Amino acid sequence: MTEYRVEHDLLGERNVPADAYYGVHTLRAKENFQISGVSISKFPYLISALASIKQAAAEANYQLGLLSKERRDAIESACIEIREGRLHDQFVVDIIQGGAGTSTNMNANEVICNRALEILGHERGQYDFLHPNEHVNLAQSTNDVYPTALRIATSFAIEHLIEAMGRLHDAFEEKAVEFAGLLKLGRTQLQDAVPMTLGLEFSAFATMVEEDMARLKEADALIREINLGATAIGTGINSHPEYAGRAVETLKRITGIDLSIAPNLIEATQDCGAFVQISGVLKRIAVKLSKTCNDLRLLASGPRAGFGEINLPPMQAGSSIMPGKVNPVIPEVVNQVAFEVFGNDITVTFAAEAGQLQLNAFEPIIAASLFRSFNHLTAASVTLADKCVKGITANPERMREAVERSTSLATALNPYIGYKLATSVAREAHETGATVRQVVLSKQLMTSEKLDEALRPDALIKPRVY
Amino acid sequence: MTEYRVEHDLLGERNVPADAYYGVHTLRAKENFQISGVSISKFPYLISALASIKQAAAEANYQLGLLSKERRDAIESACIEIREGRLHDQFVVDIIQGGAGTSTNMNANEVICNRALEILGHERGQYDFLHPNEHVNLAQSTNDVYPTALRIATSFAIEHLIEAMGRLHDAFEEKAVEFAGLLKLGRTQLQDAVPMTLGLEFSAFATMVEEDMARLKEADALIREINLGATAIGTGINSHPEYAGRAVETLKRITGIDLSIAPNLIEATQDCGAFVQISGVLKRIAVKLSKTCNDLRLLASGPRAGFGEINLPPMQAGSSIMPGKVNPVIPEVVNQVAFEVFGNDITVTFAAEAGQLQLNAFEPIIAASLFRSFNHLTAASVTLADKCVKGITANPERMREAVERSTSLATALNPYIGYKLATSVAREAHETGATVRQVVLSKQLMTSEKLDEALRPDALIKPRVY
Amino acid sequence: MTEYRVEHDLLGERNVPADAYYGVHTLRAKENFQISGVSISKFPYLISALASIKQAAAEANYQLGLLSKERRDAIESACIEIREGRLHDQFVVDIIQGGAGTSTNMNANEVICNRALEILGHERGQYDFLHPNEHVNLAQSTNDVYPTALRIATSFAIEHLIEAMGRLHDAFEEKAVEFAGLLKLGRTQLQDAVPMTLGLEFSAFATMVEEDMARLKEADALIREINLGATAIGTGINSHPEYAGRAVETLKRITGIDLSIAPNLIEATQDCGAFVQISGVLKRIAVKLSKTCNDLRLLASGPRAGFGEINLPPMQAGSSIMPGKVNPVIPEVVNQVAFEVFGNDITVTFAAEAGQLQLNAFEPIIAASLFRSFNHLTAASVTLADKCVKGITANPERMREAVERSTSLATALNPYIGYKLATSVAREAHETGATVRQVVLSKQLMTSEKLDEALRPDALIKPRVY
Amino acid sequence: MTEYRVEHDLLGERNVPADAYYGVHTLRAKENFQISGVSISKFPYLISALASIKQAAAEANYQLGLLSKERRDAIESACIEIREGRLHDQFVVDIIQGGAGTSTNMNANEVICNRALEILGHERGQYDFLHPNEHVNLAQSTNDVYPTALRIATSFAIEHLIEAMGRLHDAFEEKAVEFAGLLKLGRTQLQDAVPMTLGLEFSAFATMVEEDMARLKEADALIREINLGATAIGTGINSHPEYAGRAVETLKRITGIDLSIAPNLIEATQDCGAFVQISGVLKRIAVKLSKTCNDLRLLASGPRAGFGEINLPPMQAGSSIMPGKVNPVIPEVVNQVAFEVFGNDITVTFAAEAGQLQLNAFEPIIAASLFRSFNHLTAASVTLADKCVKGITANPERMREAVERSTSLATALNPYIGYKLATSVAREAHETGATVRQVVLSKQLMTSEKLDEALRPDALIKPRVY
Repeated sequence: MTEYRVEHDLLGERNVPADAYYGVHTLRAKENFQISGVSISKFPYLISALASIKQAAAEANYQLGLLSKERRDAIESACIEIREGRLHDQFVVDIIQGGAGTSTNMNANEVICNRALEILGHERGQYDFLHPNEHVNLAQSTNDVYPTALRIATSFAIEHLIEAMGRLHDAFEEKAVEFAGLLKLGRTQLQDAVPMTLGLEFSAFATMVEEDMARLKEADALIREINLGATAIGTGINSHPEYAGRAVETLKRITGIDLSIAPNLIEATQDCGAFVQISGVLKRIAVKLSKTCNDLRLLASGPRAGFGEINLPPMQAGSSIMPGKVNPVIPEVVNQVAFEVFGNDITVTFAAEAGQLQLNAFEPIIAASLFRSFNHLTAASVTLADKCVKGITANPERMREAVERSTSLATALNPYIGYKLATSVAREAHETGATVRQVVLSKQLMTSEKLDEALRPDALIKPRVY
Repeated sequence: MTEYRVEHDLLGERNVPADAYYGVHTLRAKENFQISGVSISKFPYLISALASIKQAAAEANYQLGLLSKERRDAIESACIEIREGRLHDQFVVDIIQGGAGTSTNMNANEVICNRALEILGHERGQYDFLHPNEHVNLAQSTNDVYPTALRIATSFAIEHLIEAMGRLHDAFEEKAVEFAGLLKLGRTQLQDAVPMTLGLEFSAFATMVEEDMARLKEADALIREINLGATAIGTGINSHPEYAGRAVETLKRITGIDLSIAPNLIEATQDCGAFVQISGVLKRIAVKLSKTCNDLRLLASGPRAGFGEINLPPMQAGSSIMPGKVNPVIPEVVNQVAFEVFGNDITVTFAAEAGQLQLNAFEPIIAASLFRSFNHLTAASVTLADKCVKGITANPERMREAVERSTSLATALNPYIGYKLATSVAREAHETGATVRQVVLSKQLMTSEKLDEALRPDALIKPRVY
Repeated sequence: MTEYRVEHDLLGERNVPADAYYGVHTLRAKENFQISGVSISKFPYLISALASIKQAAAEANYQLGLLSKERRDAIESACIEIREGRLHDQFVVDIIQGGAGTSTNMNANEVICNRALEILGHERGQYDFLHPNEHVNLAQSTNDVYPTALRIATSFAIEHLIEAMGRLHDAFEEKAVEFAGLLKLGRTQLQDAVPMTLGLEFSAFATMVEEDMARLKEADALIREINLGATAIGTGINSHPEYAGRAVETLKRITGIDLSIAPNLIEATQDCGAFVQISGVLKRIAVKLSKTCNDLRLLASGPRAGFGEINLPPMQAGSSIMPGKVNPVIPEVVNQVAFEVFGNDITVTFAAEAGQLQLNAFEPIIAASLFRSFNHLTAASVTLADKCVKGITANPERMREAVERSTSLATALNPYIGYKLATSVAREAHETGATVRQVVLSKQLMTSEKLDEALRPDALIKPRVY
Repeated sequence: MTEYRVEHDLLGERNVPADAYYGVHTLRAKENFQISGVSISKFPYLISALASIKQAAAEANYQLGLLSKERRDAIESACIEIREGRLHDQFVVDIIQGGAGTSTNMNANEVICNRALEILGHERGQYDFLHPNEHVNLAQSTNDVYPTALRIATSFAIEHLIEAMGRLHDAFEEKAVEFAGLLKLGRTQLQDAVPMTLGLEFSAFATMVEEDMARLKEADALIREINLGATAIGTGINSHPEYAGRAVETLKRITGIDLSIAPNLIEATQDCGAFVQISGVLKRIAVKLSKTCNDLRLLASGPRAGFGEINLPPMQAGSSIMPGKVNPVIPEVVNQVAFEVFGNDITVTFAAEAGQLQLNAFEPIIAASLFRSFNHLTAASVTLADKCVKGITANPERMREAVERSTSLATALNPYIGYKLATSVAREAHETGATVRQVVLSKQLMTSEKLDEALRPDALIKPRVY
């Protein structure tokens, strides 16, 4: 009884665990890349994408008479199992790896091959019947399989992020309606500015999320252009002229993604522009999320010595020493995800810039960074929606009082008394502590009726005819 | 005879140089912000955009009966002069400034006002006849004027960058044609890979530029959405309900840019997403440019102990100590511009994230960074096209010899003898120094005729039927 | 029989799993922060640091009569167990968390408290006998415990990274000796420059690592300044005047780290400067590592159509389609770690800048980013040393031939025939394909003997007397 | 009469303006690099450093008998003139340049040579008498001159930045004394925390600046290690064995900087680590400055609907539409400088990582980025000190009132009534709007005397014996 089977590659022989679906290439890669401790098995979108590609390639090669029906069927069955979530634990290579993704591709080839061998009634490792490179990888190269898999996985990730952002958008939108009538002071440069409503403030948050969702969808379109059929370096060497077209048809069907083949495959094989762009869009989303969370924390500052306009729902005790303290922990964690996304974008930029000649060997770290950004942004959006925004309440009296005391109301008097005179009103109000109303009346600059009209709340928050 | 005129603001009186078109607000800002020594006068797109907005606003207010024809005419004339390039030296505020662009807006208000006063037959500073805030800035706030001006200026900058990139694209495209028949070895991970042509390599460079041009055009569409009419914080306070629509109509006409008004003005006033996105696209362009220049430097490495496939045109002596050395100075300067753009993108990200509540006070540094990226990328693209790409020549013998000696030719044998056997051929060739052809024939793995067919150059660089 | 115990906090009651050592605060935090899926249990240095602090605090409070001997003993025992590696699985809060580390601190308080309760013969949750806040956290605040723990953990991490870098340094140093006699062409700007030896090249790699180790040690000194005793915001509220000094004494003893108390505790509590600086040093290390790996990949490029000066040990098959291809997978994975470190540095910068007033609430992401950089750099250094550098071999003939063919040898003639004449020699050699020697002799610029002397290999690679 | 003189280099002949001190190499570089429009003439520290090196080299070569006294004297005189500020307008090459600084070095060689020729009684361009390369550049290469010049210039810049930061430190320190007695509420996570004084808050600002000054001094030490004598690639080719030592002695004397020669010149010539490190320190300074300015803006927020604890001196009218609005324009501009420094650090990182083999060709952009960071940080520090900090005033009543109303005072009761009971006090105070004092007394948890003692202001802000 043996616990190992022997496999060999160009470096020689190695014992592979008998129960492993992966083979010698994967084994070496696992040993070579002991960096993050996070294997590709943690990235189900990527594994599903790989299995989809292998299935589509087998189908195309079968159609072209280059693969037998029996082998096609076995490969297809194995791929479907993997796409359904099985055997993911066999994808053991570190997500951070050298070799431009070759080890990820070979991990897929080997697992699919060995599972297909079982389906065919053979034992794992009996590659004479079905070979990881010659059959599973037929007409393929890591140079086209890996980027294509990353793009499909990214498209899956985009879909889920949009869903999470939609939830956040709806939460803000609901609050915008709830807070529609609550007058408050707008602020620019942290200084008291002119009036608005809390509803408008939350509506702006909602719009920001909505716009970012639109940008994501646009970026998705770029990601869907793949280089399948490029094989090595993009010339299509070793593939049949009809292979790419047929493979992509199947791939579109089984992934449900509207993929297309890049017009210049040499360029597409070396180009990481779409990843840089999607990372830029994630950064944009993170910028907005972080800004929004900064605002929520500011508006909820206090409770007594801050802005105190809104209350975030308390989620946990805030301090190990200060009793009763409650902190904005949810916005804070979202801020931190944003900071991480900013960092990931730099990693992506460096990796993309480092591509050389016909290939970018650094796509694995691009993938690791992008997927982390996607996962954390998705989690952060849902967390912010469910554990914070939905439970926000307002302090209407405090907001209204601030409006009434504000010297910025003088702005609304420009059309009546001019910028220069309004300035002196604001200044006197500021220095004496009086309200703008009091100063105007005491100086008899306007009649009480005219002033009431000028400072009517609903007229302050939109254009009007003078 | 006096060299000064007295102006005053809420802080008191100040002497303004008699010949200055700017006024007290600009003077204070000039003194307050002594940081970069680079004034906004160096950014003609921005000044032109400001003058366009002021002209459009005056027109709209005139149409709505809020500004007399005489004042409208004078403001319009002053704006046209500025748009034609005059008085730019009067825009003296540092491009890096506090105050969210207020000083830039006031600089424009004051210069336009004083020039218009002259046109009206008054002296500079006689603001009783025409006032910088009450008339030139009528129905406006820095909160809408400044972002709108930045967006128009950015759109101008996009247009010029696309033009420069088009020139670069054409230069690569011409070389792609010129080098179409030159067989060479492709390289992945800096290791010899399968054959391609130098024409394909340059065609990929051309395609990269072309795709980036398309991305720029997409980003331009986002930039064209403006918040004019938002006035302070986005509520439109102090503006007429029809003001925004009318002003934008004129603005579209005189700038030639297809502008539209943002649907949520509160959000649009505080949002810097479009700047983040355009900066992300510039970063993407820089990534590609830098990668391309890295490739050019690699391909031209040598002349004897490097790749030596191409020759860059010599532009200057390369060394103060090594006689006859010629260096790839043009690609090197382009690389450096790319590195600068990566840094500028981080600056933009920080500034955008730092926005608070109803405004982002840090748009000046966003503008400074973006404009620097635009200017340098435009200059770099033209420089690369004219001083490098157009003069590139090839070394066809060296490239062809490399193909013939390459062990990677074994790849083309996969369909004939299988991956495993092909591996042993490649290995033996590598170890013995023989060619793939020699090994195959000596081992009688294929007939000479079959081998010729398998290794036919034109068949190596595209898919084929086996 | 119950599977839960009931605990409560200011938000109400919650069921805590009966077998959990953590309590209600941890439970809520675990639920609140579902972001990365990576809990603090994955960071043993951090947990060890927390346990050390709690032990030191208990000791100090006992000495000051504020904690009974029985409680001190129990807390101490629990902390020692944790420092020995037990109960780490009870640290379940996500490393990315809101609340400025409060949840991490409370997780430690609760686990230690419940383990100590067991030691005291009580059941978990019986906080009347020993309380997480009142006893385990006595005289402490998250505001001082968390930053102190991060600094101690960082110091542990520095120690391990230095060890790994030492291994890399030694590997380069050994190769420097092995390759000492191998003459080769130096290159500047990828162009052939003057001669050197491969030993000198590897010696430079060794020196780079060595210098970075020195920088790490300097940064360690900054990290060792802690704010223990600051309690909330740095005023030391609720602590005994002698507490900080006594606690730090114990802490130094049990951690073995030469800690000191910051002179301004208000400042130290809000300041993340030391983290920014250490991150900057890690970035510096990454820059050098990446540059070194770029060089290794360049020098090993080929095997036939590249520089081909050295051979990296083959670690795995390089291609799923190109038989026999071997790629520089180890340097490639190290490059990618470097790119990640650059990104992490940006995350740290954003988080540090976002601190407000008396605290930086974003230290958790600083910690997560720094620890990731440390772990990956440590792994990368060892991997590069053991799986690449140690196995590098050289191709002496190829290197020597390049020297002899090089036109750059003309540089050595400057002192004999002048820069101008040497330039024409280099030029003619370049254009005709002749060697510098041939040109000089054919033009009778120097005698053969003089030329031999001028081009003597050992004289070319150092200063000399003319 | 001619307006041009003819010069030639390896590319052929060119007309150089007759009145130019620069020559053909500079002319070509000027034409080749039309990127930023900012020439090296704008960087007087760099020009002074270059002239110092050339002077020191001439002296060393003279001492070694390799340069005549006459030529030494002429070169020395020319260098002294330049160091005194003359001829800076002749340094016309763009600061962003390809060629690894060769054009900067040649610009210096040519200007010095032509000025020295004049001193010797010859005409510009008569290089037979004195040659830019053979005499001015004798025993030098750009590979050692340029990095050495950058380091000397950086050391000059450090000195000036430290001076500016000292001014800022003193301004904060003075305010710390002025505000020492003003009790206020500390804040963590923007939530009300325990009391402190405004003096302590400003003292923390001062300490932050002070610590950063110390870090700068440490970094200066690294910068002072130079590679002069390395000549091309670091082997010292073409230099006399005693040259480096003698040149550095003179260089130390005339620059006043304590320079030393790097132990491994091959490494030192290719290494940019010190620049990465100094850039990291500048980033650290920027992080602190930005955080400080964020705090100042927060503390001054309002005037009525914000924190309103301090008043920044008004520097200009804040709004073109809101009369009387005054904005924190000075902190805002400092924030923006910080954002720029963060970006510059990324540029430096990219450029440093891109070094290849024996040289980093991208030092020009490192220099441009670093010098911009230095200049702007220096200007920002002085601006912040003089135009903001010195004029800050406090609102003591508002701060004191916040302390009294704060529920966080419950923290001080922990030692008396325990964390749990204190939590219920804080909670009741929060819910009812009562003060902590009122709740404690109404619940008879402590006597009035004990409570007075517990909440005594001076006891709240430091450790105490219970």
